[in-house]
Amino acid sequence: MKLETPLLDQVNIPADLRKLEPGQLQQLADELRQEMIHAVSYTGGHLGSGLGVVELTVALHYVFNTPEDKLVWDVGHQAYPHKIITGRRDRIRTLRQGGGLSGFTKRSESEYDPFGAAHSSTSISAALGFAIANKMMNRPGRGIAVIGDGSMSAGMAYEAMNNARQAGNRLIVILNDNDMSIAPPVGALSSYLSRLLSSRKFLELREYLKQISGRVLPPPLQKAAARVDEYARGFAQGGGTLFEELGFYYVGPIDGHNMDHLLPVLENVRDAAEGPMLIHVVTQKGKGYAPAEASADKYHGVVKFDVVSGTQHKPQPKAPAYQNVFGDMLIEEAKRDPTICAITAAMPSGTGVDRFAKAFPEKSFDVGIAEQHAVTFAAGLAAQGMRPFCAIYSTFLQRAYDQVVHDVALQNLPVRFAIDRAGLVGADGATHAGSFDITYLSTLPNMVVMAASDEAELADMVHTAAVYDDGPIALRYPRGEGTGVAIPATRTRLEIGKGRIVRQGNKVAILSLGTRLAEALAAAETLDAKGLSTTVADMRFAKPLDMALIRKLAATHEVLVTIEEGAIGGFGGHVLTLASDEGLLDAGLKVRTLRLPDVYQDHDAPAKQYAEAGLDAAGIVRTVLDALRHNSVNAADEGDLGGAARA
Amino acid sequence: MKLETPLLDQVNIPADLRKLEPGQLQQLADELRQEMIHAVSYTGGHLGSGLGVVELTVALHYVFNTPEDKLVWDVGHQAYPHKIITGRRDRIRTLRQGGGLSGFTKRSESEYDPFGAAHSSTSISAALGFAIANKMMNRPGRGIAVIGDGSMSAGMAYEAMNNARQAGNRLIVILNDNDMSIAPPVGALSSYLSRLLSSRKFLELREYLKQISGRVLPPPLQKAAARVDEYARGFAQGGGTLFEELGFYYVGPIDGHNMDHLLPVLENVRDAAEGPMLIHVVTQKGKGYAPAEASADKYHGVVKFDVVSGTQHKPQPKAPAYQNVFGDMLIEEAKRDPTICAITAAMPSGTGVDRFAKAFPEKSFDVGIAEQHAVTFAAGLAAQGMRPFCAIYSTFLQRAYDQVVHDVALQNLPVRFAIDRAGLVGADGATHAGSFDITYLSTLPNMVVMAASDEAELADMVHTAAVYDDGPIALRYPRGEGTGVAIPATRTRLEIGKGRIVRQGNKVAILSLGTRLAEALAAAETLDAKGLSTTVADMRFAKPLDMALIRKLAATHEVLVTIEEGAIGGFGGHVLTLASDEGLLDAGLKVRTLRLPDVYQDHDAPAKQYAEAGLDAAGIVRTVLDALRHNSVNAADEGDLGGAARA
Repeated sequence: MKLETPLLDQVNIPADLRKLEPGQLQQLADELRQEMIHAVSYTGGHLGSGLGVVELTVALHYVFNTPEDKLVWDVGHQAYPHKIITGRRDRIRTLRQGGGLSGFTKRSESEYDPFGAAHSSTSISAALGFAIANKMMNRPGRGIAVIGDGSMSAGMAYEAMNNARQAGNRLIVILNDNDMSIAPPVGALSSYLSRLLSSRKFLELREYLKQISGRVLPPPLQKAAARVDEYARGFAQGGGTLFEELGFYYVGPIDGHNMDHLLPVLENVRDAAEGPMLIHVVTQKGKGYAPAEASADKYHGVVKFDVVSGTQHKPQPKAPAYQNVFGDMLIEEAKRDPTICAITAAMPSGTGVDRFAKAFPEKSFDVGIAEQHAVTFAAGLAAQGMRPFCAIYSTFLQRAYDQVVHDVALQNLPVRFAIDRAGLVGADGATHAGSFDITYLSTLPNMVVMAASDEAELADMVHTAAVYDDGPIALRYPRGEGTGVAIPATRTRLEIGKGRIVRQGNKVAILSLGTRLAEALAAAETLDAKGLSTTVADMRFAKPLDMALIRKLAATHEVLVTIEEGAIGGFGGHVLTLASDEGLLDAGLKVRTLRLPDVYQDHDAPAKQYAEAGLDAAGIVRTVLDALRHNSVNAADEGDLGGAARA
Repeated sequence: MKLETPLLDQVNIPADLRKLEPGQLQQLADELRQEMIHAVSYTGGHLGSGLGVVELTVALHYVFNTPEDKLVWDVGHQAYPHKIITGRRDRIRTLRQGGGLSGFTKRSESEYDPFGAAHSSTSISAALGFAIANKMMNRPGRGIAVIGDGSMSAGMAYEAMNNARQAGNRLIVILNDNDMSIAPPVGALSSYLSRLLSSRKFLELREYLKQISGRVLPPPLQKAAARVDEYARGFAQGGGTLFEELGFYYVGPIDGHNMDHLLPVLENVRDAAEGPMLIHVVTQKGKGYAPAEASADKYHGVVKFDVVSGTQHKPQPKAPAYQNVFGDMLIEEAKRDPTICAITAAMPSGTGVDRFAKAFPEKSFDVGIAEQHAVTFAAGLAAQGMRPFCAIYSTFLQRAYDQVVHDVALQNLPVRFAIDRAGLVGADGATHAGSFDITYLSTLPNMVVMAASDEAELADMVHTAAVYDDGPIALRYPRGEGTGVAIPATRTRLEIGKGRIVRQGNKVAILSLGTRLAEALAAAETLDAKGLSTTVADMRFAKPLDMALIRKLAATHEVLVTIEEGAIGGFGGHVLTLASDEGLLDAGLKVRTLRLPDVYQDHDAPAKQYAEAGLDAAGIVRTVLDALRHNSVNAADEGDLGGAARA
């Protein structure tokens, strides 16, 4: 093997790339692939998806005029190669680390990231926005969306396609078909794509070139115009009609690892007068790294690993992950109750539904990336007597908010929401933080909202939700490992809307919701040591609130502090609101609410994120001391303020 | 014309209907149509949609075994004929009146309404839930969704279709194609359906019967099996492939007003071994009532009218509707700023975007029922330098919550949300109430949330949003007419996060957000008369809060009452939270928050709904007096409680 000059060193930004000859691009792609593998071996992160689009990344930046042409990577976790050749190679080993590069595209990082992502299926809408804005303003520049087949199952991708025609040739959609999102794909669209592939062979380059120069090609792909309706409608070769019925010109399938195919097709699409275009590119997740290619999940998400062997350095878990406790407990409940079933939206292993599916395959439903359908489907199941558990990450349940309101809560249907990844999530950052569910769920009449403080509590909450005999009920719990507490052999049915005193004191009361309980207990130790006798309650329910307990704590303590892993308007806001309804705050009780701050916190270790938010033991202590200090300040001021108030 | 026996009197429920001969069904349909016209002439409501499905309603209940077969009407506003023949004829003249029948399907009304609706595009997911629940439990019963072509533009319909195959022949989708939802339809799917219609003639009954008995029919439609691939895939006749690619057997188009077509096709579909089925039924909105047929909007929604002439008794408006003020003000802003554009999701007239579209057709976008796309499309436009106004009803913006969070707020993009129908909406009831937007938006970092107290304030808020030079900003305003206040000739740019004192007092302060301001002022008069000098502030902003004003009011008043047209966790919750952060509540200030109650309020006149919620002048006065009374109670109790607290 001859020593080649490293091309990657010459490519800082896409303009550098465009100085290369087409024949050099595969070498660049090879180097880019190696660079990415080494970087991710060091940082961990999403590997398989990026490996699959190395050639596509190079080809797109080569053919299109980024950043004027807006390249929108759907989800954005496949954009590591893109980051390396758009001015961020020097920081690529900070990926997903505190203060480092995001694991997704992010507008604040680079002008080459015109639209941040992390949730799926937004790219066509955003690219259409870029295209139409330029059209309205008479500016050049296309919108180019790169979207995986898995992301195509979400309704918003379809909504966008249905509206695409107005963009004309300013919109290009690259369908990156790797037959796999995180889990194997589901649904009719996926089968359709497979049929397309089996019915249409990859076009040979020779054949392509012949078509490009000849008359057998659909109008947008030939410069000499000729009307070949059958091909354009996809009938001749039996494929692509779904997209054509939605108003796209369909081109493909193209081998996404073959520069000789990618370049001429992308160039022709770039120069076509008609549009919008959908280019069906077939790639292989994990491509070019043997351990990834050989792995079932194609190294979708990895921790640090050894490049030669591919061995991941997975730390030994100290306690079971919450998602697995959920899955195991749900199996237990389903053995007892034949109406229990489980729904996941493309996250079977992330939610623990994979475990349930092994035990009860006929009662487990993976609907693909389709949270809206997941929730209303669950509502239909519930209306017909089932007790469905909808296991969805907090941040993704936002996709189905209207369905939660209109189809479930308003009808008081017994859907159970198992809300994973509640609270801060660490390396995935702000886009994945489960910050808002307490607020957006607790405001809804009929809804019951629980938060588990540890995995034993989660077990009881799964049981409580399973046997709850009224309307909707939600249980939230964080990403990652539990506390290591023992899970009792039998379940306790929790009383709805009742908390528990974990530690008794008489001056300060900490009302904790969720897994900040450990920090609350640590804070209580510190406060006690300072002579501030501290009660800690695990409130369990954000809705309905345990008002009897709150009344008692209000009557017997000087300071109440609420703490939750959620944003304003949630548990703390409800405590203040319902307590003020009753006049509990009128007599000078000091209440403080600890919650997530009013900013989107960047990715970092969760413990650091929580400390930054003041939601750790130190933050609690600080808040209590401030409240007590404030009291004396207020007392000093009271002459003025009180006097004025009563003037 | 011979006198016929009225059949409708014999049909209380579908079981009665099934005793009739097929030849009697058209007569029944005619009577049903007349009954419906007369009822709606009396109550007002949705007329055109119901008229279009009279024959379909009769045929479905005749052929299928409702209520065991679950008939799910998408949106549900076309279900008046359904209500009349499912035991509710005696109450049909109470439609949409307080205490009367809902204008939509509603589970609590009847076992023939298995799933309530009002928001669009939920029916396939729900019907799939019914079908799969029965499959899991080995019970009989199909899920039958009746969905309009307009509803098909929403992503969740596609998500459901993508997951339909697992239901097999237990799922039937009736695509009710009337080429019109509320406004004329938009998007590629609509064009596709039109092409289908133009390419495929209605099948003649004779031809159908021949096919049914012969060998030219696709497998699910013939009892003798024969494989006719071309037809099944829709290629032979050039249509239906989109649905077939999504896994459905496509049947149609069928004349939805012809019993001789409907009955045999529905019977064959019912008896088919394969599925799921999609039956493309073509109907005419407003069918059978000349004034509706002749009207542009087909009498989609009407007030009371004269049956003979069709003349609607529209009350003379006393003031311009908020939506029209919005539309007119946006035109004003767009004349000044070329980056202003407007987006509506199938509600051009309801949002006033129709006015804007007349003035700026190239800057106005109706994306169909596709709120998710609307918001992310707006985010893309904003990222490319436009200032898009997304005009969406509060209740429908719930559909795009994740897009608001992930694509707009997190990226701090300058999308403006014009939130119409905020607060209670009257006759449309709980499904359409805009109760939650203050809460679900104000919890988001970067978001600015304003509420207009009258139409002059709305004009200034449109201007403020137009010139706001940071991230996202939302303005909310109610359904219906303004207060009649004069709108000044020039606009004022409001200071972000600043309220205004409308009335000065010194004992009670009412912090009003939105159009409850008039009630707050009325309450202040009453309170003043009782010797309780009352300040009223129009706070304008739920986020950011005017903390300087709140501090001042807290320092100079004894009781603070917040009032808003929204549920818990919103404006009042934020006032309590941020005030408690600062210790403003520590000194015995009495704060009360008036908000929508923790129930879904049934439809009624908005004024009655607000009175029921305690959000009128009387409710405010009651709350203030209670707070002051509570004070003395607390003082009396303080010996016990205070002692315990400090024990």
